[in-house]
Amino acid sequence: MPWYDMPLERLREYRTSTQEPDGLDDWWAGRIAEARALAEPLTRTPHQPGLYDPFQVDDVEFSGGGGDRIRAWHFRPRGNAAAPMVVKFIGYGGGRGVPAEHVLLPALGYALLVMDTRGQGGRWTSGATPDGGTGTGPENSLVMTRGITRPEDYYYTRLFTDAALAIDTAIKLAGSGAGPGIAVTGGSQGGALALAAAALRPDVVRVCHADVPFLCDIQRAITLAPHAPYTEIPEFLAENTKLIEPALNTLRYVDCALLARRITATTLVSVGLMDDICPPSTVFAAYNEITADKEIAVYPYSDHSCPRGHTERQLAHLGKHFPAR
Amino acid sequence: MPWYDMPLERLREYRTSTQEPDGLDDWWAGRIAEARALAEPLTRTPHQPGLYDPFQVDDVEFSGGGGDRIRAWHFRPRGNAAAPMVVKFIGYGGGRGVPAEHVLLPALGYALLVMDTRGQGGRWTSGATPDGGTGTGPENSLVMTRGITRPEDYYYTRLFTDAALAIDTAIKLAGSGAGPGIAVTGGSQGGALALAAAALRPDVVRVCHADVPFLCDIQRAITLAPHAPYTEIPEFLAENTKLIEPALNTLRYVDCALLARRITATTLVSVGLMDDICPPSTVFAAYNEITADKEIAVYPYSDHSCPRGHTERQLAHLGKHFPAR
Amino acid sequence: MPWYDMPLERLREYRTSTQEPDGLDDWWAGRIAEARALAEPLTRTPHQPGLYDPFQVDDVEFSGGGGDRIRAWHFRPRGNAAAPMVVKFIGYGGGRGVPAEHVLLPALGYALLVMDTRGQGGRWTSGATPDGGTGTGPENSLVMTRGITRPEDYYYTRLFTDAALAIDTAIKLAGSGAGPGIAVTGGSQGGALALAAAALRPDVVRVCHADVPFLCDIQRAITLAPHAPYTEIPEFLAENTKLIEPALNTLRYVDCALLARRITATTLVSVGLMDDICPPSTVFAAYNEITADKEIAVYPYSDHSCPRGHTERQLAHLGKHFPAR
Amino acid sequence: MPWYDMPLERLREYRTSTQEPDGLDDWWAGRIAEARALAEPLTRTPHQPGLYDPFQVDDVEFSGGGGDRIRAWHFRPRGNAAAPMVVKFIGYGGGRGVPAEHVLLPALGYALLVMDTRGQGGRWTSGATPDGGTGTGPENSLVMTRGITRPEDYYYTRLFTDAALAIDTAIKLAGSGAGPGIAVTGGSQGGALALAAAALRPDVVRVCHADVPFLCDIQRAITLAPHAPYTEIPEFLAENTKLIEPALNTLRYVDCALLARRITATTLVSVGLMDDICPPSTVFAAYNEITADKEIAVYPYSDHSCPRGHTERQLAHLGKHFPAR
Amino acid sequence: MPWYDMPLERLREYRTSTQEPDGLDDWWAGRIAEARALAEPLTRTPHQPGLYDPFQVDDVEFSGGGGDRIRAWHFRPRGNAAAPMVVKFIGYGGGRGVPAEHVLLPALGYALLVMDTRGQGGRWTSGATPDGGTGTGPENSLVMTRGITRPEDYYYTRLFTDAALAIDTAIKLAGSGAGPGIAVTGGSQGGALALAAAALRPDVVRVCHADVPFLCDIQRAITLAPHAPYTEIPEFLAENTKLIEPALNTLRYVDCALLARRITATTLVSVGLMDDICPPSTVFAAYNEITADKEIAVYPYSDHSCPRGHTERQLAHLGKHFPAR
Amino acid sequence: MPWYDMPLERLREYRTSTQEPDGLDDWWAGRIAEARALAEPLTRTPHQPGLYDPFQVDDVEFSGGGGDRIRAWHFRPRGNAAAPMVVKFIGYGGGRGVPAEHVLLPALGYALLVMDTRGQGGRWTSGATPDGGTGTGPENSLVMTRGITRPEDYYYTRLFTDAALAIDTAIKLAGSGAGPGIAVTGGSQGGALALAAAALRPDVVRVCHADVPFLCDIQRAITLAPHAPYTEIPEFLAENTKLIEPALNTLRYVDCALLARRITATTLVSVGLMDDICPPSTVFAAYNEITADKEIAVYPYSDHSCPRGHTERQLAHLGKHFPAR
Repeated sequence: MPWYDMPLERLREYRTSTQEPDGLDDWWAGRIAEARALAEPLTRTPHQPGLYDPFQVDDVEFSGGGGDRIRAWHFRPRGNAAAPMVVKFIGYGGGRGVPAEHVLLPALGYALLVMDTRGQGGRWTSGATPDGGTGTGPENSLVMTRGITRPEDYYYTRLFTDAALAIDTAIKLAGSGAGPGIAVTGGSQGGALALAAAALRPDVVRVCHADVPFLCDIQRAITLAPHAPYTEIPEFLAENTKLIEPALNTLRYVDCALLARRITATTLVSVGLMDDICPPSTVFAAYNEITADKEIAVYPYSDHSCPRGHTERQLAHLGKHFPAR
Repeated sequence: MPWYDMPLERLREYRTSTQEPDGLDDWWAGRIAEARALAEPLTRTPHQPGLYDPFQVDDVEFSGGGGDRIRAWHFRPRGNAAAPMVVKFIGYGGGRGVPAEHVLLPALGYALLVMDTRGQGGRWTSGATPDGGTGTGPENSLVMTRGITRPEDYYYTRLFTDAALAIDTAIKLAGSGAGPGIAVTGGSQGGALALAAAALRPDVVRVCHADVPFLCDIQRAITLAPHAPYTEIPEFLAENTKLIEPALNTLRYVDCALLARRITATTLVSVGLMDDICPPSTVFAAYNEITADKEIAVYPYSDHSCPRGHTERQLAHLGKHFPAR
Repeated sequence: MPWYDMPLERLREYRTSTQEPDGLDDWWAGRIAEARALAEPLTRTPHQPGLYDPFQVDDVEFSGGGGDRIRAWHFRPRGNAAAPMVVKFIGYGGGRGVPAEHVLLPALGYALLVMDTRGQGGRWTSGATPDGGTGTGPENSLVMTRGITRPEDYYYTRLFTDAALAIDTAIKLAGSGAGPGIAVTGGSQGGALALAAAALRPDVVRVCHADVPFLCDIQRAITLAPHAPYTEIPEFLAENTKLIEPALNTLRYVDCALLARRITATTLVSVGLMDDICPPSTVFAAYNEITADKEIAVYPYSDHSCPRGHTERQLAHLGKHFPAR
Repeated sequence: MPWYDMPLERLREYRTSTQEPDGLDDWWAGRIAEARALAEPLTRTPHQPGLYDPFQVDDVEFSGGGGDRIRAWHFRPRGNAAAPMVVKFIGYGGGRGVPAEHVLLPALGYALLVMDTRGQGGRWTSGATPDGGTGTGPENSLVMTRGITRPEDYYYTRLFTDAALAIDTAIKLAGSGAGPGIAVTGGSQGGALALAAAALRPDVVRVCHADVPFLCDIQRAITLAPHAPYTEIPEFLAENTKLIEPALNTLRYVDCALLARRITATTLVSVGLMDDICPPSTVFAAYNEITADKEIAVYPYSDHSCPRGHTERQLAHLGKHFPAR
Repeated sequence: MPWYDMPLERLREYRTSTQEPDGLDDWWAGRIAEARALAEPLTRTPHQPGLYDPFQVDDVEFSGGGGDRIRAWHFRPRGNAAAPMVVKFIGYGGGRGVPAEHVLLPALGYALLVMDTRGQGGRWTSGATPDGGTGTGPENSLVMTRGITRPEDYYYTRLFTDAALAIDTAIKLAGSGAGPGIAVTGGSQGGALALAAAALRPDVVRVCHADVPFLCDIQRAITLAPHAPYTEIPEFLAENTKLIEPALNTLRYVDCALLARRITATTLVSVGLMDDICPPSTVFAAYNEITADKEIAVYPYSDHSCPRGHTERQLAHLGKHFPAR
Repeated sequence: MPWYDMPLERLREYRTSTQEPDGLDDWWAGRIAEARALAEPLTRTPHQPGLYDPFQVDDVEFSGGGGDRIRAWHFRPRGNAAAPMVVKFIGYGGGRGVPAEHVLLPALGYALLVMDTRGQGGRWTSGATPDGGTGTGPENSLVMTRGITRPEDYYYTRLFTDAALAIDTAIKLAGSGAGPGIAVTGGSQGGALALAAAALRPDVVRVCHADVPFLCDIQRAITLAPHAPYTEIPEFLAENTKLIEPALNTLRYVDCALLARRITATTLVSVGLMDDICPPSTVFAAYNEITADKEIAVYPYSDHSCPRGHTERQLAHLGKHFPAR
C-alpha cells in the first residue's frame, strides 16, 4: 500500500474534526459505576499446573461491562510478589489465546493480566468469553456495528468498560506490585483498549503502549480505510441509511482521539505510514491530542504489522518508566 | 466455479452420513414450547400509509426464540380477507429490508409475512431486529459460531425457533386465509429457514419453496465449501480446537438434511451445480431425505444465484398447490 | 472503497469539462428520424397466461435504433385502462429477465414497459434481444467499445435510440394513460438510459428517476473508475492508441452529462459517495447540468448498490409527481 | 494452479464424450460455399513503406464468413517469390496488432498471412476488423455467446469460416510458394483456428501447429475451466437456462475435438498440465482424435503460457516438414 | 480452503513415491564434512545488555554451509548453566528477528539457539545473514530455485548444512546442558529444518518438534500446492523446461520425506487438513517414514497456521521427553 | 488503474527531490574499472546451427560486474559484417530466453546483443546466468533488496555494471558495425538498463530506447507504486527498520533519474499514465533530467504494458537516427 494518507508533516499537525459529546466524562463514569455495581468477585483457577513452571498462571474471571464475566490470564513470576503489573489487550478477532503467547513480559519480571475480548477470539487465536446474553463462548464475529444505534448499547462501550474494570482487577491481583500504578499495552484494537484504559483510569495507568491503534478518529477512518474492520461500518450504513446519524453519534463515545485527552500516562505510540487498516492520520489524530509525556515511533514503510523490532523499543521504554523491580 | 462436487448421478443418490441426535423431535418441541411460554402479544403498526396503496402493509412484532421480539412485514391485499398466507425468510446477512422488495406475492393475491433476521440485516439490505441481549438493531455480523458450544445457545436454534413461531403468527394474521395451511419460501439461509419451518411445523406448512438452501449436511459443507459463510466455522475451529466436538454436535440440531425427514409439505427445491456457497451435494442431502411430494430444479451452470427465471416455476408450482384464491 | 473522489462540497459544484459536440440536437433528431423511418409495427404476445393474474403481461416487440427489433415486457393492471405509464431500463449486462422481477410498479397501479437491452442479458439476468446483425439473442458481452470509432456506429447510439423509441411505444401502449406523459426509471446503465430518454424526448417524459447513473462525464470517468465497465475503454485504448481521438469524440454524443441539459422532467437522482463503478463526480456532473425541477439523494457510505430503501423515496416522489391514478 | 485435471496416463487415453452432429462435413461445406459466393476480391495496401525493409508488408483485406471483410498482414520476403506460406491466427481478445509482432517466420524465409480476429483486438493487442454489422472496428469484447442459439449464427462459425477463407487467400498470395501446401499456426484461440483450418481445408493444409488450443471438448471445458473465456458460457447459461440445449448443440459444430478427425496435416500440439484456461484433458481430447502424423509437447509445470522455448521445437518441426526453401 | 487432499484414512497410510538418491547418507556426510573443514570459530556478542535481564542473550555467529557465517541468538537463563538446549528454526521469508520473539522456551528454563535463515529475513520479520557471496544482509527473496540445477549448489543444501552445524554450535554453547542431547523445533520451513537437523544429526538430536513442515514429498507438493512457496518451482520450470530433470533430481536431496527415515529423536509433528501451503499428504509422507517414537497432531479445520494452542501440547511433550531441569 | 499520479501538466515539469550522491561519476568509474580488471575473454558458441538460418546466432559469454560471467545472444545477419549493433536488456523476472524472442531487429538488418539478466530468468521466460556465487543458473527470484545495505554490494550495481560491460562486448562483436556507436533498448527493467548503459557509456551509446523504465526516482516510487517489484523494498524495510537509511542511500547510486543527466544519446522514452508498476511521475523524473535530444511517447490509457504499436515508432526513430545500413 502506497502512502495514501497525508504527508508526514501534515500528519504531525493533524487534528480530528469530530466533536466530543457533551458530558463525556460523566457518561463514562456512569458506565463504569454501573458495571462496578453489578460486579461479582473475581475467581482464579490455576491453569495447566506445572506447564509454565517459573510462573503461576491463573485463569481469571472478573466482572466487566454490564456485569458480564470476562476471562483473563494472570501471570505472576513465582517468588516475586511485588512484580509491577501490566495489562495487555488483544487485537480484532482475537482472544486471550493460551498463556504461551504472552510470556515475554512475565519472563522479564512483570506480572501480567491478559484480558480476553468478549465475543471475539474466533479468528487468529482462541478466546473464552461470550458477549453477554447471546453467546456461550468465543465467536468468529464482526462487532463494529453491534448495538451501534445507542452509545449505551454499543459493543465497544461494553468492551472499553471491561478494560476499565480490568484495571480494577489488575490492582487487586498486583497487591504490593501496584505501587507504581499499572501499565497497559496492546496493538490495533488492543492499542485502542490501552488508550481507552489509560483515558478512563488516568488515576492509576502510568504507562501506555499503543501500537497502530484502532478506533481513533473513527468518523474519518470509515471514509478512508480500504479494508476491514473499519469497512464494516460503511457496509452497514450503505443500506441502513436511517441509522447513519445515531451511528455517527455513538462512535464519538468510543473515539480514542477524543478520549486521549484524558491520558496522564507516559505514552508510546507506533504508526505505520503504509497502514491500510488503521490510516496513519487517525493514529496521529489520537496521538496529537495527548498532553501527557509521549513519543511516537513512525515507521515509514510499515503497514498495519508493527515491526517486530519495535518490541525492543517498548521494553526499553518500560525499563525506563516502569522498571520490573 | 467448475463442477467441483459429485457428478449429478451420484448427487441424486447421495445421503448424509451425519447422525441425527437422539430425541431431536422432543428437543425441538422443548425449544418451541419454551418460546411460546415467553411470548408476548404481537403488535401491528401501519407502515408508510398510502405508499403501497393496494396493500395494507404493517410493521409487525412477534415473540420468537427465547421470547425475543422479532420484526416482520405483513402484507394483506386490501379487500381480500381470505388471501392465503406465505411466510418468507431472508438470506444470510440480510433483513426484511423495505416492503418494496417483497411485493411480488401480494401483487398476485397472497398475504405475506416477511420475517426479519435477528442480528443480521447489515449487509446487502437493511434489518430491524437485534439478536436478544447484545444488540439494539440490525448488525453487519457473522453468526455461524455464535453460541455454537451448546445447541440450546446456538444462534440458529434461536433463529429456527423464530421461524417456527412466525408460523404461529402467520396463522393468527391470516384469519380465514389460513384455511389451506401456510406456505413458506426463501433462498439460501432463507431456504434453510423454509425447510426448518416446514420440518418443525409439519402440521400446518403445506407448501415449501427452498432455493439453494444453506445449512444442509453441515458437517460435510464445512469441509467442502470454499467461501463464506460455511468457512466461518472452520476458521473458528482452526484455533478453538477444543470446541470441535461440541460444535459438531451442536450443528446436528439445526442440520436441515436431518430435519427434512419431518417435512410433509409439497416441496420445490432448486440447486446450482456450480454453487460454491452451498455445495450441491449438501442441497441434495436435504432433498434426498424428504419423503413428501417433491421436485428439484437442477441448474447445471448456475452458482449460488438461483436463476431469476426460476421464480416463474415457483409461481406455477404455487398456483397449482396453493392457489391465490 | 473509501471516499476517493472529491469532497461533497466540491461535488455539488463540479461541472464537466467535456465540450458538447456541435449540432448535438440535430444529430440526435437525425438518429431518431432514421429509426422511425425504418420502424415496423409493434407486436404483442401474451406471456404465460394466468401466471401473473391481476396483470396482463405481454411480450412486446418494437423497432428501435436502425430498425432493429427490441423486446420488452408490457404490464397493464387489469381493469385500469388509464394507468399512467412508466418505462424502465436495465443495468449493464442485464436484460428484461422475467416479468416477476418488475412487478412493483404494476402492483401499485402503474402500467409498465420494461425495455430489453440489445446484445446484453447474459450475465446477472436473462435477455431476449440481439444487437442487430451479429447476434440471435442475448449475449454475455462487453459493449463499451462496440462501434466506438464513429458516433453513428456506436453501440450506445443504437441503445439510446432504442430508449427514445421505447417512449413512442409506451405512448402507443398507454392509450389514455399517456395523458400525464411518461415516467422513466432505471439504475446504473438503466439510469443513463432514463436520463437519455428524458433528454431525447423532453416533450413527453415528465418524471425521471436515475439511480447511480452510468455514462455521465465519460471522459473523466474512464480515468477515474477502478472497475468495469468504464475500464473497458482504457483497456481498449491502451493498445488501439490511434483510436483515442475518434473514441473520445464518439463518447461525447452519448454523454449524459451533456444530454442532461435537455431534460424537462422532474428528476430524482441518487449517488453513493463510495461508488467505485460510477464515480460520484460523474453523477454530479450530470445532475449539475439539469435545469428542470430536481433532487439528489446522497448516500455517503453507499457504493454502486443504491440502498434498497431508496425505492420508498422513489415511490413517494412518483406518488407526488406522477400519481397512479 | 496444481494438476487439477486427470493424471497424464489417463489424459493420453481420454476421448471426448460429445457426439458429433450429423452431417457436420456437409454443414461446414455449406458455410464455406456460402461465404465464397459472397466474396469480393482481396485488396492489398503497402503498410508503412520502408519500415520493415527486407520484407514487403501489405495490409490485406479479404472476404470471410458471410462475406464480411477481414483484415490481415501479408509478409513476403523481398526477392523470394517462392517462399512457402504460413497462416497465423491470434489468441482470444487479440487482433493482428502491428507487423512487428509477427516477424519471426518471415525472417526465417516464410511468407506469412496473419489473420485479424473479427470483433476482437481490443485487449492485449490491437485489431482492425469489425464483426459484421455491429461494429466499425476492433472491440474489447466477449464473443463466446454471440449468436450461440443457432450454429449458423454463432460467432465462431463466422470466425472458423474466416480461417477457411484465409487459406484461399493464402494460396492466392503465395503464388508459386503454395506448391507444398499451406502451414497454419496459432496459440489458444489461434490454436483452435489452426486446428479448424486444418480440418476444414485438409486438401491444402499440410502442417498444423496448435499451442494450448482453445475450443476443444467444449462441453467438458465449460464445466471444468475455472477462468475466462470458457466461463463466459456457464455465466450466460446460469440465467438463460432455456438456451442450455440450443447452446450445447451449437457448440458441437465448432468443437475442435470433433473437427480434428478431418485433419491430414502433420500436426504439433502443445499442452500445459497446469493450464487453467484450456484444461489439459480438452487439449488431449482433440489431439487423441487426430489420425494424421502428430506429436504433442507435454509441459508438466506450465500453465496456459506455452513455454517460449517451444518456439524452437516448432521451428525445427517446420524446418523438417515444411522447409523455408 | 476445503479438504482438497486425500481423506484422513488415506493420509495415514500414504507413502511418497519419490525415490531416494543413491548414497544419500554419504552425500550429506560429505556436505557436512566440507562445511566443518571450512569453519571458523564461533563468536558471541552480548545483545542489548540489560534489556532481557533474567537472560543472557548473545548475538552469535557460526560457520554453516560452505563456511558462510550464520547469525543466531543464544539465550541462556542466568544462573542455570545446565539448562538443556533447544535449537529453533524459522519459517519461509523470515529470519531470527529480535530476541523478544523467542522468549518462551528460555522463560521455561531452556537454553535456546535461534538460527537465522541465510538470505531471508526480509518479509514478516527481520534477519541478519546474507546467503554467501551475493548479499550483505537479509533479503526479501525467493529461494526455492536458487542453485536448483545441481544438488551441491542448491540453496537448501546450504541451509540444511547450516542447520546441521547449528547443532554443533548448540552443543558447544550448551556445555553441561548438552547432556540429554539437543531438541529442535520449528514450523513450516522451520519444521523442515527441524526434521532435517534430526535426520542429519541423529546422534545428538533427541527431540524434534516439526509444525506443518515444508519441503516434504516435494515432487508431489509442487503439483498440488496452490500457493507459494511451492509454486515458485512450477513457475520456474514452466519456462526453463530443460531444467526439469536436474531440478527434480536436486529436490530429492533435501526432501524431508526421504531424510525422515534417519530420525531417531522422539518426534511431534502437526498437520492441518486445510493447509494449502504444505498439503497434508506431504506432511504425512514425512511422518509416515519416521521409525522413531512419534506422534502427530491432526487439526482437521486448520490451514497452514498451526493452532496457537498446539504450543501447550509441545510444552507438555517437551516436559515429558526433554525436561527443563 | 485510474490516473492515480500527477496530472500530465505537472508530470511534464516534475523533478526528483532525491539528492545525487557525491562523486557518483567516480564511483561508477570505479565499479567499471574493477569489473574490467577482472574480465576474462568473451566466448562464442553457435546456437542451434541452421535453426535461424539467415542469421548467425551465437551463445556469448562475457565478464560483467565483479568479473561474473554473463550470457547473451548475439545475432549477426549473415553477409552483413557492417550491421550496426543494438544491445537489448530484459524486464524484471526474465532472462534472454530463446533467440526466437528477439528476431525483429536482426530481421531488419541490425546486429543484436541480448544480455541475460543475472539471477533472474525464472518467471515469464528462461535465463542462463547465475548471480555470482550463490546460483548455478537462472532463478525465480526477487532481487530488489539483494545486497541493498551497501552500494558496492547491491544487486543492481552488479547488473548495471553488466550493462556497461555489455557495451564493451557489443563493440568487440560489432567490428566495423560499431562505427555509428551503439544503440540500447529495453522495457521496464530493460528500460532502466538502457538508460543506465547510456548514462554510464555516454561516449559510445548514440541511441537509447527506454520503455516504461523501472528504477527511476526510486525513493518516490517505493512510496507510490502499489505493486511489485517496487513493493519489495517497503516490504523489506517494514521489518528491517534499521536498514532504512543505508537502503535509501544505496538506491541513490542506481537511480536512473540521477544517472540520466549523463546521457548523450538521442533518447526515446515511453510512459503509460495508468502504469501502476512504474508510476508515470518516476518515468518523467528521469526523462526530465535528460539534456540530450529526446522524445517521450505518452500513452494516456496504457498501464505498464507499453502499446505494441509503439514498436513502429521505435523502428521509425531507429531508422532516422541509427539506420540499418
